[in-house]
Formats: sequence, structure tokens, C-alpha cells
Amino acid sequence: MHAMENLRREANAIALRKLFEADPVVEDVQPALTAVPGFTRNLILTSGPTMDWSSYQGGQRDAIIGAALFEGLAENATEADRNLASGDIRLLGAQELSCVGSVAGVYTASMPVLVVRNRRHGNVAFCNFYEGTNPRRLNYGIYDEDVRDQLLYVNTIVAPVLGEAIRRSGGIAMKPLMKRALNMGDELHSRNSAAGLLLMRELLPHFLADRSADPVKTEMAIAALTEDQYFFLRFSMAAAKATADAAHGVEHSSLVTAMSFNCREFAIRVSGLGSLWFKGPHPQVAAKLFDGFSTSDITWMGGESIITETIGLGGFAQAGAPTLQSYQGGTVQSLIDKNLEMYQITLGENPDYLIANLGYRGTPTGIDIFKVVETGVTPVMDIGIAGKGGGQIGAGTVRADKASFASAVEAFVSQYS
Amino acid sequence: MHAMENLRREANAIALRKLFEADPVVEDVQPALTAVPGFTRNLILTSGPTMDWSSYQGGQRDAIIGAALFEGLAENATEADRNLASGDIRLLGAQELSCVGSVAGVYTASMPVLVVRNRRHGNVAFCNFYEGTNPRRLNYGIYDEDVRDQLLYVNTIVAPVLGEAIRRSGGIAMKPLMKRALNMGDELHSRNSAAGLLLMRELLPHFLADRSADPVKTEMAIAALTEDQYFFLRFSMAAAKATADAAHGVEHSSLVTAMSFNCREFAIRVSGLGSLWFKGPHPQVAAKLFDGFSTSDITWMGGESIITETIGLGGFAQAGAPTLQSYQGGTVQSLIDKNLEMYQITLGENPDYLIANLGYRGTPTGIDIFKVVETGVTPVMDIGIAGKGGGQIGAGTVRADKASFASAVEAFVSQYS
Repeated sequence: MHAMENLRREANAIALRKLFEADPVVEDVQPALTAVPGFTRNLILTSGPTMDWSSYQGGQRDAIIGAALFEGLAENATEADRNLASGDIRLLGAQELSCVGSVAGVYTASMPVLVVRNRRHGNVAFCNFYEGTNPRRLNYGIYDEDVRDQLLYVNTIVAPVLGEAIRRSGGIAMKPLMKRALNMGDELHSRNSAAGLLLMRELLPHFLADRSADPVKTEMAIAALTEDQYFFLRFSMAAAKATADAAHGVEHSSLVTAMSFNCREFAIRVSGLGSLWFKGPHPQVAAKLFDGFSTSDITWMGGESIITETIGLGGFAQAGAPTLQSYQGGTVQSLIDKNLEMYQITLGENPDYLIANLGYRGTPTGIDIFKVVETGVTPVMDIGIAGKGGGQIGAGTVRADKASFASAVEAFVSQYS
Repeated sequence: MHAMENLRREANAIALRKLFEADPVVEDVQPALTAVPGFTRNLILTSGPTMDWSSYQGGQRDAIIGAALFEGLAENATEADRNLASGDIRLLGAQELSCVGSVAGVYTASMPVLVVRNRRHGNVAFCNFYEGTNPRRLNYGIYDEDVRDQLLYVNTIVAPVLGEAIRRSGGIAMKPLMKRALNMGDELHSRNSAAGLLLMRELLPHFLADRSADPVKTEMAIAALTEDQYFFLRFSMAAAKATADAAHGVEHSSLVTAMSFNCREFAIRVSGLGSLWFKGPHPQVAAKLFDGFSTSDITWMGGESIITETIGLGGFAQAGAPTLQSYQGGTVQSLIDKNLEMYQITLGENPDYLIANLGYRGTPTGIDIFKVVETGVTPVMDIGIAGKGGGQIGAGTVRADKASFASAVEAFVSQYS
């Protein structure tokens, strides 16, 4: 037992160092089909561990059908259902292809993705685009003409202009922007305004340098990039995925390298436990809902934006984002308290993500399944709340359930003892 | 005595409401000669109450001579000295013309100024431009070829491009930007990064809409606007001056409407006490100096950026800018404590400038000379520190001396009782 613990300690130090040293750089924007190895024309990605089609329900099921219609993989919902059941339309958990999904998290072949390369270790991760400020969005289980138009706007205006600027830049390192944004009110999950503005500042010379560009399109792309709190989240998600993946696959390491929801369950992956997902129930929710909604309207459609918490951001950096009070509820003190609590379940303090509001202490980084089980403290996560009728109906702070961590510990002990 | 206090209470409520309701909008950029009523070709403005030429010393004197050379009002320092002594070059405290000076705060006729109109009350205030990131600057008492080149760069590239965009915009309201920046790490005096980025976002469509613009110049102007912490300060200074001036001149009001340094003294103006300056010694300094400097290098060259403190920003909003720790020293707690202390000497809580880090409490706003004298608590101010050899050598938090407030109270009692 002692030997196993020593091996685990060493392995965790290695995994954590990889996580710390990762250098995520956004290099390109391309359609998923072009950019993501393994993507095919008839593939739909969605949040959470892959399930049989028959297991998807509610908004996540609606989002997948909407994605099939948007991509022209079916003429109508009935045909989409049939093709998904038969396997003519393939369905896969997004993280199987190094992608991460926001809420329902659907990807289709034509959708543009951010290509983020971890230049330290060479691995690449992806995230598709924020649809816009309308709370009715495909990733919240809605597909209608407005949603389709917005998706086409992203595909035809925002993504090409942004892609051109990113390629001209030669790649933009995400860590310096994220590091700075943490002291400008962002925690890089529910609050991303400063990071968006800092990214815009980096991209501007490349927008301007493109003399052949249509300035109206440039303005539209810039407006999308800076309109609110969520555009940059897709950058921080891809950067977090590229970072967390670098720490995956270290034998004997009990570091959590991914967390994920689908409409049925919460699940985690562990560095030393291969590609297996350890599953448990959804968390309890403490949410602040938009006017007109009540807790009975809350539903789960999936979500993998909690990859940010996996690398020490979001719920692990709440002290950096005091405006979360007005968005998710709580007080400054409760934000700080929850942030501090996370040091109990993490393997180290982030050398880059320092929070001025915590006296420049590094964010608690690298969740350890053993620490979670021993302390009973579970990860804090900042998430958008989906409504049963579709769309975003609020935001909240949730605490993961302990079961998936307990199940991972059991598997770990069984594998390594 | 009771009647006087009632009159004072009522007058202060009126003055404070004017301060709160002010709506500063940046409308234009023009050379001081064109924009500022009363400016003449042979005029130099400088920080602090106007003094005889012979009273100026050290870096402030060097800055004034540098300004004369830059403007071509003299061939060399000896001639400048002679012309200043004779009055052939006129010298005036900046605030006499609704301008505010940063550190030595010199203005000459050709220097561009931001034109900020208080659209609620109609008064206009001005501030000239930040010179750039080099710590060796004219406003810190240095004039050489590099300084001259930087000033010409501001005059010929930055100001015209920015002016064109501002005019195209039809005017940009400062308060919404400043309000938001307070929850993105700025206190709008020593920290201004977020406000600069937010302003850039407002101006961008107007930069892009100017199809005839030279994109290289646009890039240069944008780079200046966003390169660091200080460019936006000139906007917040002009906005603060336009705000504070609106509250000036209310009979029976004991509200402080201006604070100022020159190389000799600290001074304040009071709403109900006309244009008189009440003077006292310089404050004690708690500074964090750049590497290689010690407290014996510190000197006073003047400064009026503390107009921001006058309207509830800067030292009165430190809790919004936790990164001040690394720039000025102190801890998160000491920033919060100093911020809270200011409620003891102010007339109200700002309805617009709310600090998430204080649970969205409005910043302490409207310094009352009586409260300062009664409590012995003096205003906290965030300032840049000048070196005896010229240039900026650090930054710090200073506390005003009580004497000027005591002298104002004496004058107030004598005038109104």
C-alpha cells in the first residue's frame, strides 16, 4: 500500500507538471470535418460519455436531431431519429475526438472549430463556436429558423474572418491572455469579457492587415468576439482541453483529466485509468435563474465546459470574478470560501493562474480522486442552466456528486494494488 | 450654527446630486489652442495653483522649460527662463481653464486635448495625452530628443486618428465604460487597462468605417490606446474634471471639487468657497518604487490626476483593483480597508460606480471638508511617483495632509456664519 502511494505521488507530480507546462496556442479555424482527425460527414458529436441513441432524452436529444437537420443528414426529425437509431448517422462523445462540448455540445461536419495546439507537448484540442447572445441556441436544445440563421452566420461570417486573422497571427498563445483576464474579473468559464477584449487586441493588427477584407464582415466578427461574456469561453475550453489531455495517460496518476455531463449522468476520466469514464448522478444545483423561470424548469442537456475547472479555472478561480455574484448568486465571501475549499482536493497551486484577490495565490489545480473521496469535498463548477423548454434559463454554481470519484478510486485500487 | 448646518446639508445634497448626475462624454480631440477657451500661443499650463515663475523648482520647473522648448517659445533653457520670468511666456494652473494635469501636467498650444462635455450640465473639461510607456516623459520633468519624438508621435499620429474616430462616433459616454471597468480590475487612476479595452471596443467600428484611413496609423493609434495601464487615465481625468466642475459653485456646500499638487504644496477647492485654493504640505508617501530607486529619490513635480479621487474613483475605489498590490504595494485587505475608511469622509455612495468586491456597494463619493477635519481621516490617493532625476520611479498610495482641509473649514465658517 505504501509503495502504491509513493508511485501515485510521483505519477501525480509528473501529470501535474505536464498540466502546468502545457502551452495552448490557437492556430486555426476550420470546419470540424477538415480539422478534427476521425470526423466524417455523417458524424455528430455531443457532450458526455457516448451512449446508445435511445438513451438520449430531452434537450440533448432535441439538439442532436437539430444538428442532423442543420447538417442536412436528415429531411425531418423522424428521419433523423431513424438514421441515428440505425447508425447511418454516427454519434460520439465529443471528448473521444479531443473536442469539448458546451451544454448539449453538438458538432457537425460543417461547423467551424477552434484549433488549439499545445506547443509544449504537441497534442491538439478543438472547440466549436459560441452561437450568440440569444438564449435560444442549438447547444441549449433548440433548433428553428432563427437558430439555423445564427449558426449560418457563425459559419459564413464570424468563423472565416476570425480564422483568417488567427492564421495571419501565426498563432496566439492562450495562457498569457487567460492569466491576465483572471485579474480583470474573469474566471474563464462563466465570465470571459476581459479575455475576449484581450484576444481582440491581439487579433486587431491581423484584422487590419488584411487589406482585401470586407470591413463590414470584420466589424461583424469583432462584434461577435466582444459582445458579451461567452464568446471567449470556447477558446478557454479548447485551451483547457489541450492542457488537460497533456496530463492524461500517466500510469499510477490519480489526477482527474476530464469531467463531463450528458443528459443522464456526470462522469470523470483519470490520468492513470485510460479512456474509461467513471459515472455518477448529476450534481445538486444552486442557480440564479433569469426572470420568469423557477427551479422546476431546470434540466440537464449535458456539458463539458467544466474542462476549465479541470485545469484550475472557473469554479476553482471564482475569487477572480466577483461579478459572479450578480450572475450566479452568492456573495464575495462565498465565492472566496468556495475557491479556498478547492485547495483541499487539488494537487498543487497553479504557477500561472494567480489571483490578486487571493494575494496572488495560484489557483487550486489538479483534482485528485483520492482527496475528493477522503475529504468529501467535491469540485465546484460554474455552469449555464438549461430549461426544460429549451434555451438557457440561468447560471449557477454546482457541486459534483461524490459517486463518480468513489467509483474511480475503487477502479484505481483494483488496478494498481 | 444649527441654521448654517442645515443650509450646508441642503447645499451638499444639491452639489452631490450634480456630481452624481454628470454625464461626461468624450466628443473631440483638438489642439489645446483650438479647444480650450482662453488658451493662447504663448501659454503653458501646469499642475497646481498658479505660482510665480520663481517658485517652480525641480522636475516641475524642468517640465515647464521643456514645454517652452517643445512649443518653440524659446530657443534654449536660458531664453525660456527669461521669457517665463518676464511673462512673455504665460504660466497658469491647469484647472483655471478646466484642464487637469498629470504630474507636472504641462500643456502647450499645439498639444492635443480630449474634449469631454458633461451633457447633463453643459460644462466642458479637457485633458492632454499620455506620452507613452517610457518612464522618461515630459510630465515627469524630462525633455530630450526621445521625449520630443514621443510628443510629436502623439501629436501627429495618435491624436488625429483617435480624434477622427471620436468625431465619427458622435461622442462616447465615459460613465458606462468606467462603471464596467471598476469590476474588471480598474480603479480608473493607477489601473486603466480594462477601460482602455472597453473604449477601444466602442471606437473600433469608427476606426474601421474610415475607409480612407491609413491602416498603419490606425494600428499605431490602437496600440497606444491599449498598450498599458495609463492611456485611459487621461479620459478618466477629463471625465472626472467635467463631473467635479458641475458640483462647483453651490453656495453653502462644503464638498471638495478639486484637489491638486504643485512642486510646493497640496491644495483643494471647495464648492461653496469660490475659486480659492486652500493649501497645505505634501502628503506622506507609501510607495512601491521600481528597481534601483530608494525613497530618497522621491520628489514632487505636481499632479492633478487626483481629480479621480474627487469623484469617488482611484483611492476611493481601490477594492475594485486588487492588482494595485503588485503596483503600489499593500495587500487585498489593506486595499479594502482603505477603501472602506473613505466612507467616513464622504457625503454619499455613488449610484453608478459599484464595486463587486464590496458586494456592489457604491464607491464613497464627495469629500466633505468638515468630515475630514472631524474624523482626522484624510483622502487616499493613488499616484505615480516622480524621481529627483526625472521620470517615473514608482507608484504609491498617499494620504493627503489635513492642513488644507482645516484651512478650508476655517474659511467656510468665517464666510457662512
